[in-house]
Amino acid sequence: MPKLVLVRHGQSEWNEKNLFTGWVDVRLSAIGEKEAARAGQLLKEKNVKPEILFTSKLSRAIQTANIALSEADRLWIPVVRSWRLNERHYGALQGKDKAATLNEYGEEKFNTWRRSFDVPPPTIEDSSEYSQKGEERYNDIDPAVVPATESLKLVIDRLLPYWQDVISKELLDGKTVMIAAHGNSLRGLVKHLDNISDADIAKLNIPTGIPLVYELDENLKPTKPAYYLDPEAAAAGAAAVAAQGKKK
Amino acid sequence: MPKLVLVRHGQSEWNEKNLFTGWVDVRLSAIGEKEAARAGQLLKEKNVKPEILFTSKLSRAIQTANIALSEADRLWIPVVRSWRLNERHYGALQGKDKAATLNEYGEEKFNTWRRSFDVPPPTIEDSSEYSQKGEERYNDIDPAVVPATESLKLVIDRLLPYWQDVISKELLDGKTVMIAAHGNSLRGLVKHLDNISDADIAKLNIPTGIPLVYELDENLKPTKPAYYLDPEAAAAGAAAVAAQGKKK
Repeated sequence: MPKLVLVRHGQSEWNEKNLFTGWVDVRLSAIGEKEAARAGQLLKEKNVKPEILFTSKLSRAIQTANIALSEADRLWIPVVRSWRLNERHYGALQGKDKAATLNEYGEEKFNTWRRSFDVPPPTIEDSSEYSQKGEERYNDIDPAVVPATESLKLVIDRLLPYWQDVISKELLDGKTVMIAAHGNSLRGLVKHLDNISDADIAKLNIPTGIPLVYELDENLKPTKPAYYLDPEAAAAGAAAVAAQGKKK
Repeated sequence: MPKLVLVRHGQSEWNEKNLFTGWVDVRLSAIGEKEAARAGQLLKEKNVKPEILFTSKLSRAIQTANIALSEADRLWIPVVRSWRLNERHYGALQGKDKAATLNEYGEEKFNTWRRSFDVPPPTIEDSSEYSQKGEERYNDIDPAVVPATESLKLVIDRLLPYWQDVISKELLDGKTVMIAAHGNSLRGLVKHLDNISDADIAKLNIPTGIPLVYELDENLKPTKPAYYLDPEAAAAGAAAVAAQGKKK
């Protein structure tokens, strides 16, 4: 039966600095690299064998997958990358310090931008050093769809067609599919798979670097609740993500 | 105009031990990882920007590409892997010490197996720990084509259809294409591109970890001689490869 393995990238250089990242292409920190290696060791220990890999177009997700698959001795599987798995575009917040943003705009706006379902942050100017307008990496898609900001709803809107047409195809072939992506693109997918309401998704935090496994039926519905390959570390990790941004 | 960038993987754990490797999936050594990083730095310094990557299905070529593209800030490009870019299958020699093989079989046989165009080494037994028969990595191809030994001619025979149909397509689109592969699969490709005779190809040694660039016309013919991005290091590297196996 098809199996879906979701891996959220580990700590990046900007997570470490507590900056909003979004589509800015920062790298994993040394801690993030260790998290990725641990993800690969878990795959190996638990005998979960991805047969095809999907990643976003952002380096931190690709690094995570490369390190994890190296540890799991499965570097050879086919790889497909898509901007549709990218992190949520954080608009004008990209590059801004989270604590400073909280101070500047107050808790209500801050929480709305971080956790509301359909309110995107202010758009980023094309001229900003943190805008992705015109970036070569996105030369293969309609320039009109490179976002200047996104809500979680907009992430799901651009993610689902890719899930429906491309990722689903591999699962329907009975494969074990791995997706290496980001907090919000994975939240969007989990919302869809677990049929979580627009209100409740705000409370869902996916920990970094711990593979989350869905066993699916022939209609791509979960046959049982999804499970983390290291449940204890996952619970601790989700709590840490929930506390993010409250750092002063 | 289309550009082709060939990168031979750097030192592997078995190069270091002077063992015949072929299709055995050994990893890069620490030196090999450094060579891969240098390859990526050269791409960046010389402003060579691969737009799509092809690799073999062997970890040492994939590691080389991952490290090089990370250094070159181009982890995001599309990736395609194929067994048709694999190293030559060394048959029963796989896993054997090169110097011991030279002593056991004598210089004539040894040199014939290493450098003749169309004499493959003895076939490997399916039961050997170094056979690839039944390996999951090759589950997606006709089991009949997983080799038990190969000459350089047989490598070219299985490589050319992939070059003609798949790699050529990207080049004909005008792209800069990177191939991360192996001594013999790259020699086969160079033989084809530079129209080298069956006799003369024996003398060609491709150094490890130094990108070799072909600028091609619309018929995929080189418009000038291919060049290494670090010519001095390439000359030294080719001499080192030529001396391989003579180590006692």
